[in-house]
Amino acid sequence: MAKKIRVTVWNEFRHEKKNEKIAAIYTKGMHGAIAAHLKAQGDFTVRTATLDEPEHGLTDEVLAATDVMTWWGHIAHREVADEIAAKVHSRVLEGMGLIAMHSAHLSKIFTRLMGTTCQLKWREAGEREVLWVARPGHPILQGIDDHFILPHVEMYGEFFDIPEPDETILISSFAGGEVFHSGVTFRPGAGRIFYFRPGHETYPIYHDANVLRVITNAIRWAAPTGRMEFGVRNKPMGWFEKA
Amino acid sequence: MAKKIRVTVWNEFRHEKKNEKIAAIYTKGMHGAIAAHLKAQGDFTVRTATLDEPEHGLTDEVLAATDVMTWWGHIAHREVADEIAAKVHSRVLEGMGLIAMHSAHLSKIFTRLMGTTCQLKWREAGEREVLWVARPGHPILQGIDDHFILPHVEMYGEFFDIPEPDETILISSFAGGEVFHSGVTFRPGAGRIFYFRPGHETYPIYHDANVLRVITNAIRWAAPTGRMEFGVRNKPMGWFEKA
Amino acid sequence: MAKKIRVTVWNEFRHEKKNEKIAAIYTKGMHGAIAAHLKAQGDFTVRTATLDEPEHGLTDEVLAATDVMTWWGHIAHREVADEIAAKVHSRVLEGMGLIAMHSAHLSKIFTRLMGTTCQLKWREAGEREVLWVARPGHPILQGIDDHFILPHVEMYGEFFDIPEPDETILISSFAGGEVFHSGVTFRPGAGRIFYFRPGHETYPIYHDANVLRVITNAIRWAAPTGRMEFGVRNKPMGWFEKA
Amino acid sequence: MAKKIRVTVWNEFRHEKKNEKIAAIYTKGMHGAIAAHLKAQGDFTVRTATLDEPEHGLTDEVLAATDVMTWWGHIAHREVADEIAAKVHSRVLEGMGLIAMHSAHLSKIFTRLMGTTCQLKWREAGEREVLWVARPGHPILQGIDDHFILPHVEMYGEFFDIPEPDETILISSFAGGEVFHSGVTFRPGAGRIFYFRPGHETYPIYHDANVLRVITNAIRWAAPTGRMEFGVRNKPMGWFEKA
Repeated sequence: MAKKIRVTVWNEFRHEKKNEKIAAIYTKGMHGAIAAHLKAQGDFTVRTATLDEPEHGLTDEVLAATDVMTWWGHIAHREVADEIAAKVHSRVLEGMGLIAMHSAHLSKIFTRLMGTTCQLKWREAGEREVLWVARPGHPILQGIDDHFILPHVEMYGEFFDIPEPDETILISSFAGGEVFHSGVTFRPGAGRIFYFRPGHETYPIYHDANVLRVITNAIRWAAPTGRMEFGVRNKPMGWFEKA
Repeated sequence: MAKKIRVTVWNEFRHEKKNEKIAAIYTKGMHGAIAAHLKAQGDFTVRTATLDEPEHGLTDEVLAATDVMTWWGHIAHREVADEIAAKVHSRVLEGMGLIAMHSAHLSKIFTRLMGTTCQLKWREAGEREVLWVARPGHPILQGIDDHFILPHVEMYGEFFDIPEPDETILISSFAGGEVFHSGVTFRPGAGRIFYFRPGHETYPIYHDANVLRVITNAIRWAAPTGRMEFGVRNKPMGWFEKA
Repeated sequence: MAKKIRVTVWNEFRHEKKNEKIAAIYTKGMHGAIAAHLKAQGDFTVRTATLDEPEHGLTDEVLAATDVMTWWGHIAHREVADEIAAKVHSRVLEGMGLIAMHSAHLSKIFTRLMGTTCQLKWREAGEREVLWVARPGHPILQGIDDHFILPHVEMYGEFFDIPEPDETILISSFAGGEVFHSGVTFRPGAGRIFYFRPGHETYPIYHDANVLRVITNAIRWAAPTGRMEFGVRNKPMGWFEKA
Repeated sequence: MAKKIRVTVWNEFRHEKKNEKIAAIYTKGMHGAIAAHLKAQGDFTVRTATLDEPEHGLTDEVLAATDVMTWWGHIAHREVADEIAAKVHSRVLEGMGLIAMHSAHLSKIFTRLMGTTCQLKWREAGEREVLWVARPGHPILQGIDDHFILPHVEMYGEFFDIPEPDETILISSFAGGEVFHSGVTFRPGAGRIFYFRPGHETYPIYHDANVLRVITNAIRWAAPTGRMEFGVRNKPMGWFEKA
């Protein structure tokens, strides 16, 4: 039997505590909704971690035992300790998968991996979003036809200040006329990153079947198959022929 | 003084002959409208060529004297001789720039360079298109702010079956809700290709100031700075140290 | 249990018939050596096909039942029927994986997918090649450390006229001083392509454990997870909201 | 007349002060050698800046008046103030070109833009390097044939931990058998980056005609043609139609 993929679902978990309407949508937090779906799949070992836990729930033990991490943050990016962000960054380069969702575009971990501002245009008007498939047959889009629709969302619009993606697999249009790189992949070091736009706290995005399907596929796609290890980098002439 | 860029504006030139309304928009053909704008810039030497001329106007002499070619075709792609398409293909790989516009997505020369079907969704409903800048500061977008609008266009929608572009610099949304990779670059061999979506025959697209600005910038960007030459490819040991 | 990946190992199979030394290295043809290794893995259904079979062994039934095809050709690229090459091309765009090996760089199927000449420098001097990992952790490189060595090979040198690859995962150096993009990936349409340099007919390359490991990994990586289907492409306003 | 490109040649300038042999190779510092070559071209306005000047010579005025910056650092990366590195980073994203040379791979500014460790293998044995052209016709390679040779260099070997480059235009082989991505481009934000490997302090690399030609070409290629400006990012419905 194939080994299970060890997933850590990380959530800032502040909106759900402060706002009754949001708490009603996500009774166990956004992390709880995502984790419950993942647990039901059978091929994942799932844990959750949140900002207000010691070390944000991301101890060295948890990091070492995580194959893929999903990240959601919004109003408290600055409260994430630099030291923890640096550890997550190193783990991604060593091979851990990272699924950055929605407002995680401004998280310490995502901006550090991108090297850019990751800024964008935005609007909260509950408008319709159509997510168009720009790479049919991609493993992350398994089970998705040529588009799917989210009826009420926060808008994110171009220019999205990220490097040219390795793959652009989803592009959104919004009722207001803007467009966005809504599903993009990057492969720094030995790791794999998927940025996935959907997910505002005030809409039940993480209960949507297509959104959950994409997240699930993305975790499978991002699971590591090898590691980056440098060891001693100063190499004498002929070192590889003596091995 | 810098050398002028030698441009050949190629047009199928059939719609304009057959349809009075189109002839009224483009009194000298679409090629005439584009060529007139380019001639006014001062840094181009411009000629035109059309399908019904001998060798489609693309003799060996013309090809050898072309730095950048713009291509527009729609209803008569199949009438372009394979031999001529092959010569244009070779010239692009050797370093000639190519600006493929609108329905040229299905031309022999573009599909051959892409290696894919280049198919897409489409609709003729005269709807509004917003072209969003996805790479600010790109030379092809000089003088363009963060978007521009075309009030009445034919829609092209994803999935657009091209390889992952080297750069996606413009993404369109349409009133109907679709999106499209409207400005994309590729650099096969020593050549540079820019695919630019705007340009249906029944709308005055090639009289639009922003469209003409992008075409003009793209020609400057695509002008060759070197050549690909293979020569003898079977190389003895040590050949490069004897030179 | 996961479904087996259906592999078709295609070989020109001419050298092995004409040259005793080559026949001694590959007693059942290069396709036989590769197929035997794949059969031993347990997760593949393997068939072979060769140039001199009717339809080159690539009937519509075989193509429809192939998830990933490996291709080796050298002296008889021109004998591959255009019609068959076109069918294989379509299947790749629809989602079939393609592993193009060594001299397949000039095959009809590979050059058609690339859109370029695919030319390169070369030398037959039996020199040493070191293949360096340029993307640790890539699924195709599972089980490979930071390099592997082939003691006697034909040299291929840059410039290799292919489009900018999606990923460059292996770069070779040769004893004579040249370098080469030896492992590169592309993802046209819904398909995945891996070009893998090793494989001359006069050296026992396809008996090398690392070469076989890379081919095996590449087939797993290239196996389809979805399809590209266009259907009717002319779409009325509002079509996706009525669905 | 075209506007001159304003170049700031930045150098750590420590080796030249401490080591007589290095001082003998670069009597006015490495920055002095590079600046002298650039001044002779006619299309640049050149200034230099070094680590030990106030604000490392990179005041707000200097940054605002720089179109392209070249960067060389090695033993004192940590002494570059975070605040200054952050300002240079912002300027690159806004559109300034950056030419990072040799050991600048570990500089604060380069690693911050890449988002990766930028680590590599290395050896100081004065061995021969051959730089092979992997993209003929690229503007940065104008005047370069298919390769050039540096007789005595420090070796840098793969894996080089950078993101998949936008373009790989030079690949090196070393006498010892290693290979390296020696000329790579990136385009974050509105800026353009060229990483160029040659340049150790103990060899007269910045007196080599081909090296100087590549640096000169790269500065012209990286000169900005536009800016990234975000302004107010929260956009009401219909904002772009009222403009």
